[in-house]
Amino acid sequence: VPKNPAIDALHREAAERRDVIGLAGGLPASELLPKEAMAEALAAAAQTDDALQYGWPEGAARLRGWIAGRLGARGLAVDPDAVIVTAGAQQALSLIAAFLPSGSTIGVGDATYPAAIAAFEAAGLEPTATRDAAAHYLVTGVSNPRGVAIDSTAALASGRPVIADEAYAELRFDGEVPAPLAADAADRVWHVGTASKVLSPGLRVGWLIPPAHAREAILQSKEAADLQTGSLAQAALVRLLDGLDYDETVARARRFYAERAGILVEALERHLPDARFTAPEGGFSVWVELEEPGDDVALLEAAVAQGVSFDPGSMFRPPADRARAPLAFRLSFSASGPEDLVEGSRRLARVLDRRRPGVRIPA
Amino acid sequence: VPKNPAIDALHREAAERRDVIGLAGGLPASELLPKEAMAEALAAAAQTDDALQYGWPEGAARLRGWIAGRLGARGLAVDPDAVIVTAGAQQALSLIAAFLPSGSTIGVGDATYPAAIAAFEAAGLEPTATRDAAAHYLVTGVSNPRGVAIDSTAALASGRPVIADEAYAELRFDGEVPAPLAADAADRVWHVGTASKVLSPGLRVGWLIPPAHAREAILQSKEAADLQTGSLAQAALVRLLDGLDYDETVARARRFYAERAGILVEALERHLPDARFTAPEGGFSVWVELEEPGDDVALLEAAVAQGVSFDPGSMFRPPADRARAPLAFRLSFSASGPEDLVEGSRRLARVLDRRRPGVRIPA
Repeated sequence: VPKNPAIDALHREAAERRDVIGLAGGLPASELLPKEAMAEALAAAAQTDDALQYGWPEGAARLRGWIAGRLGARGLAVDPDAVIVTAGAQQALSLIAAFLPSGSTIGVGDATYPAAIAAFEAAGLEPTATRDAAAHYLVTGVSNPRGVAIDSTAALASGRPVIADEAYAELRFDGEVPAPLAADAADRVWHVGTASKVLSPGLRVGWLIPPAHAREAILQSKEAADLQTGSLAQAALVRLLDGLDYDETVARARRFYAERAGILVEALERHLPDARFTAPEGGFSVWVELEEPGDDVALLEAAVAQGVSFDPGSMFRPPADRARAPLAFRLSFSASGPEDLVEGSRRLARVLDRRRPGVRIPA
Repeated sequence: VPKNPAIDALHREAAERRDVIGLAGGLPASELLPKEAMAEALAAAAQTDDALQYGWPEGAARLRGWIAGRLGARGLAVDPDAVIVTAGAQQALSLIAAFLPSGSTIGVGDATYPAAIAAFEAAGLEPTATRDAAAHYLVTGVSNPRGVAIDSTAALASGRPVIADEAYAELRFDGEVPAPLAADAADRVWHVGTASKVLSPGLRVGWLIPPAHAREAILQSKEAADLQTGSLAQAALVRLLDGLDYDETVARARRFYAERAGILVEALERHLPDARFTAPEGGFSVWVELEEPGDDVALLEAAVAQGVSFDPGSMFRPPADRARAPLAFRLSFSASGPEDLVEGSRRLARVLDRRRPGVRIPA
């Protein structure tokens, strides 16, 4: 199933237009990214031969050591040599997808990260909402798009491979980051993490800890895919982490996003009183469902015309469920300021109001 | 066919040991990489939101514009929107491989770039030396591993898809860089380029110009593979190129590598007089064939023990030809100084001498 070109065109139009409030995408707040420290780390790294040269496919030893250390503190004992540095979490998903038997099903729930669905489909897997799947994909700690913890019990109990994507796990507003799922079943759980949400997506650094039996095969796939993750990005990240209080950086991000989430939730309650959503427990976004069915691409088109964008719910659905699922959308609060969050909600209300002339929505 | 773990282990051992002269790998000379300019470009890029954030899967517009401009000057008229920025040339090969029909053959000649073979096999293609293949892969301008121009006439005349990998094309010592093959058959030629050999492998920036009919599919594969190539690397590259005389940078590299090639060729003629090789016309390496058959992994093991490493010829062979091909190896002159090139040749001669006690090689 190819990506919906209409959604892509609308998102590109929205990104180009300054008058459109962008509530689409999973972008971190630019003001939180450590620009100065990153500039220093990059400049220092670029002076070294290692950062400018080729490296081994598994990635830089010091970075793998940092990742293993951090996971160890959270209850997952892991050898640095078990870690493979990837081009973001996305490449980790793509490598895992290619490893799983083509044609088999992968349980993703009724809504999940769109690019995971794309990676699974590209590898010939069948993403499905049914629980009886040959493997499972979970965005742990803070799910995407729902923004709340999801129950991993059934997936773990299935005895099947489980992909645990920790993209947002550290960004739980309460700071209660669950232990990595791999701590319970390291022989079946594929652990996926990223530096994109807290430090910078522009580095394109993520990581994968495959079950031990799959490490060699994954490492060869990684090398065939792109030889290695950028030496410069890895070397800069190592330097950045050396000079950074990472716990404090994460804590600051939690406070920041929790405040923005609160603003968006309040604005939605005020301006879209009949929308159904759960206040997020972390992450970057709110998942909104409406009572009625409808065409969410047409809704996005109307919204962009009114100066606000979002991610249509169909992007997040397993292919077979796209047509029959209720009308839904994801609103990201992470990359818009307080005033834009409120004004974006107002504009959305106006769009929904026009769609349903019988319903009056307070201004 | 998995990578040979014995070769991998020997290469890793050689890279760790300071007493081993490394003539393996396709590394540019570290002293040629623009460290200071790169540091400045990276530091400046890191101060901008765009470089730290997510970007579109096709890559940065300004970088695509530079690539299109440079190809235009070489006779390939191409719209910047036809260019897709990839994680090095390797990712371009991997994306093309996944697009071609699984199970089909791809002609690679009797020896080619090992990671291309790996990418083709990972996608279920069958690399073959036979000319009657369903698609062709050529390292144009300066072939790898032979270091000389190869005739592309038959591949182009076949009417089949042709992958033109320009990894070393600009590094012809005579500066006579051929026009891109895509200029002759843009509907069938997949153009692949990279910033790794002249500017820095550590950036992991390459590019792909697919035939127009394949662009959308490739763009979606790219997004599924890793969302996008690193924004930081692309933004830094744009700034670097803004402040750089690229033609002069390439010209300097040509002179530098030509000199090193001359030193290695002279040392080989002196110390390995019965080895067969062609003096390279460009690139980073010399391809050496011996008269007799033999086990090139055992040869590498003996060489590393004697303090010199190389790339065994079997790495470059299509799988079906590995056993029956003559004993061969690739020696890279790019990343070793003049004294090491001479001493490395001496050590190699000693290893070959021990293998063949009847043959005396002058010290």
